[in-house]
Amino acid sequence: MSVIETSSIETLGIEIPAIPEIDAFLLCVTPQAWVDYALKNLDVVLIDHALCEKKAASTAISLMHRYPQYDELLDKMTALAREELTHFKQVINLLRERGITYQNIAPGRYAGKIFKHLRTSELGHFIDALIIGAIIEARSCERFAALVPGLVTQGEVALAGYYCSLIKAEARHFEGYLYLAELYTDEPIAPRVASLLAIEQQLIQSPDTKFRFHSGVPC
Amino acid sequence: MSVIETSSIETLGIEIPAIPEIDAFLLCVTPQAWVDYALKNLDVVLIDHALCEKKAASTAISLMHRYPQYDELLDKMTALAREELTHFKQVINLLRERGITYQNIAPGRYAGKIFKHLRTSELGHFIDALIIGAIIEARSCERFAALVPGLVTQGEVALAGYYCSLIKAEARHFEGYLYLAELYTDEPIAPRVASLLAIEQQLIQSPDTKFRFHSGVPC
Repeated sequence: MSVIETSSIETLGIEIPAIPEIDAFLLCVTPQAWVDYALKNLDVVLIDHALCEKKAASTAISLMHRYPQYDELLDKMTALAREELTHFKQVINLLRERGITYQNIAPGRYAGKIFKHLRTSELGHFIDALIIGAIIEARSCERFAALVPGLVTQGEVALAGYYCSLIKAEARHFEGYLYLAELYTDEPIAPRVASLLAIEQQLIQSPDTKFRFHSGVPC
Repeated sequence: MSVIETSSIETLGIEIPAIPEIDAFLLCVTPQAWVDYALKNLDVVLIDHALCEKKAASTAISLMHRYPQYDELLDKMTALAREELTHFKQVINLLRERGITYQNIAPGRYAGKIFKHLRTSELGHFIDALIIGAIIEARSCERFAALVPGLVTQGEVALAGYYCSLIKAEARHFEGYLYLAELYTDEPIAPRVASLLAIEQQLIQSPDTKFRFHSGVPC
């Protein structure tokens, strides 16, 4: 798949929002092999995307449950969970329009492998969970942007437009998680962010037998 | 506490929505002893109310996770979870205005005792979960209405007005759950509804050492 010119995307009324804060944050871009595979397997992309939105909502509610003492966390996670549920419903509608059966599919390795690195101390566990939330939102954002040119090329203009609209939302979620991680600890979070990002980079750039929205290089 | 006249409530611009479908459904009204205790312990009422809204949202998401094959369930539960999260945030705001610390408190016996009666067959489990959802929403609705006159009497007009606004929402949720229970089985649900309502009635009318939003008679 050749990436089409930005100008021709603009002709179609599609404008990919710039996400410099995401590009500066993540340690690598999505490998082209993942993009190519995804564009040929949009059914799986969309089903897993819906599942990710639902999971993001329930993760937010879990954080609300575990940390009731933090006001800003409660506020941000309540808003985030509501927004993820809206996205879930939007993706479900896309699946129905396409005649794709929404179903539970086994999750990929991505989130599980990162969450395995949560520190065990009370504060470490909390801050890591917030940093990982930021990382997952950042990667989602970057992947939506990575898919848009190819989607336009193969005539999926409506889906490309929808993914563009999600980019801004995911970028806000990324910033919200990172803000909370900084808010709730006196220690600088940068070293921990760097460690977790390195783990994430490895998962994105290494071969992965199970294709999912956040999977590594298809093999 | 003497229940004030409906006319004086109306003078204050508060009108308790009629809920004949709820009154006809539940086997008993809330005992006056619970209402009296609640009006003297609004802190606990509000904290537990917030927790119930959060729990209602996560229960809806659990149903979405367990039963991805049912379109109407997905649609109704997505909308319900979003609405419960909005209510959660509203109650959190009320707690903050009052200087009450939101916190996790041990749940009462109510939901746990009813859910213990879920049938074990796949379909039975599903239909019972929906019926129990309807019962809990119906009781919440009835309790909000039961609290309003006493709230007005003790000058809690804003809270009374808010609870009136929730009555309609909870009644819609009750109807939604019951609709789904009828939709997804060919068997008449009335006998099962009657059995579960009898269990609920016993929990509402028997002494209960732990006061909560859905607890029995305070003792």
